Amino acid sequence: MFSSRRNVRIEWGDCDPAGIVFYPRYFAMFDHSTVLLIEHALGMPKHRMYEAYDFAGYPSVAARARFLIPTRYGDDVVIETSITKVGRSSFSLTHRLSKEGALAVEAFDTRAWVVRDPERPGGLRAVPVPDEVVTRFKAE
Amino acid sequence: MFSSRRNVRIEWGDCDPAGIVFYPRYFAMFDHSTVLLIEHALGMPKHRMYEAYDFAGYPSVAARARFLIPTRYGDDVVIETSITKVGRSSFSLTHRLSKEGALAVEAFDTRAWVVRDPERPGGLRAVPVPDEVVTRFKAE
Amino acid sequence: MFSSRRNVRIEWGDCDPAGIVFYPRYFAMFDHSTVLLIEHALGMPKHRMYEAYDFAGYPSVAARARFLIPTRYGDDVVIETSITKVGRSSFSLTHRLSKEGALAVEAFDTRAWVVRDPERPGGLRAVPVPDEVVTRFKAE
Amino acid sequence: MFSSRRNVRIEWGDCDPAGIVFYPRYFAMFDHSTVLLIEHALGMPKHRMYEAYDFAGYPSVAARARFLIPTRYGDDVVIETSITKVGRSSFSLTHRLSKEGALAVEAFDTRAWVVRDPERPGGLRAVPVPDEVVTRFKAE
Repeated sequence: MFSSRRNVRIEWGDCDPAGIVFYPRYFAMFDHSTVLLIEHALGMPKHRMYEAYDFAGYPSVAARARFLIPTRYGDDVVIETSITKVGRSSFSLTHRLSKEGALAVEAFDTRAWVVRDPERPGGLRAVPVPDEVVTRFKAE
Repeated sequence: MFSSRRNVRIEWGDCDPAGIVFYPRYFAMFDHSTVLLIEHALGMPKHRMYEAYDFAGYPSVAARARFLIPTRYGDDVVIETSITKVGRSSFSLTHRLSKEGALAVEAFDTRAWVVRDPERPGGLRAVPVPDEVVTRFKAE
Repeated sequence: MFSSRRNVRIEWGDCDPAGIVFYPRYFAMFDHSTVLLIEHALGMPKHRMYEAYDFAGYPSVAARARFLIPTRYGDDVVIETSITKVGRSSFSLTHRLSKEGALAVEAFDTRAWVVRDPERPGGLRAVPVPDEVVTRFKAE
Repeated sequence: MFSSRRNVRIEWGDCDPAGIVFYPRYFAMFDHSTVLLIEHALGMPKHRMYEAYDFAGYPSVAARARFLIPTRYGDDVVIETSITKVGRSSFSLTHRLSKEGALAVEAFDTRAWVVRDPERPGGLRAVPVPDEVVTRFKAE
């Protein structure tokens, strides 16, 4: 399945008064890794996906993380993101953030492929992931 | 002119490793105060404004702030926001954030009344503030 | 066990280009609810806890959430937070965010009671939750 | 004077429901550019500065920005940061964020060199910038 890897410098503004990353910021980092991975898999920037596929995005429906080692501003970390499962109308990812080779944060994320729900204004409804997308997500 | 006042508790996640508010967060607080003020002035929630007025919002075109006294998580502060000027296609606001009666942050913000620019995809173009909006902004 | 409830207005700056809350922001809301709950349980502001207890805070060691209904800026939501379990050196919380009475986000969070680890600069080490804190968390 | 340049990809989570960067996020980007510039000028990571200099950091005392062209998630922008002035106990910076060669945001920031104020718990007091730091900031 598709995977990617990027280097991230922990920023001063990511950290809290204890000097460590304010953990909601990790989820923001993982969300950006997810965008980059899907852009790479589909071969187009995210804003073009809305034209290519008649859909309303791939919001998270479930996310979880374990925080094993604290990271601090100035730390250079590596985030490895992989698609681990492609279901009918959703797909799953893992994110592994490492610091000096040691796993610091491990996260799991499930995304739904959604369209706007015409019956509920503002609502979203999961629909099948297009075959072409499934194929690309499952490619190495 | 229109003004408002709200109480805000400084949150742990607003603060940086020095234990004080990470200053970009002040601008986020002032943006929310601006939304609340305009909703109050126009008598409708922000998402309804897009239906009531054929426009694309009121983005900031210039913002500045002076940081006089640091604030910390757990501090209870007061933010007073006022419309100070209504121009042809823009309006200005001041925000005064106080802690125990002392001015801690003073900020100024200019917003443009914009529509999507049909000649530049993704671009925005300032247009005259509707008369009705001008009248409401100038009301006490 | 201890629980609390607060009203939150979803802010413009909490939301992403899809118009819904950028999900890392939910974790920031839940973190603030956690701070408020613990302050209430222990009867002191968070910055005083560092004087009262010789510790380095209660960082999250695991967090997860299910996102059931999207929320948008301007939505008035309710967040109910409860301590669900107090272990030897950690405790667990649930957060339930509701919109118009319907559960929109459900989250679970485990916090460790930590001290600085003298053997690893910058490291943290879980230690037993003080008896007095256990008693207060289990009150109500 | 010292200057630097970095490439930044605008992230989905930096943007608001209008699809453009939520402007407080620009200040966060400029703060990180400031950290990187000062680390480069002083030849050490920020956390080491607290050991090398007996000080409490260089918080912003005034910041302002003009937002000329909106930027959107997926945009690749360039941020150029320069120290423009070194005063007795403060220094100033400019940040120029460009998109496809056009200036999109221009910002100015004044930082104070501070120590903890022994007379006011939690307070900060500006002190002279050390000579060595002045020399390094003024180097090309």
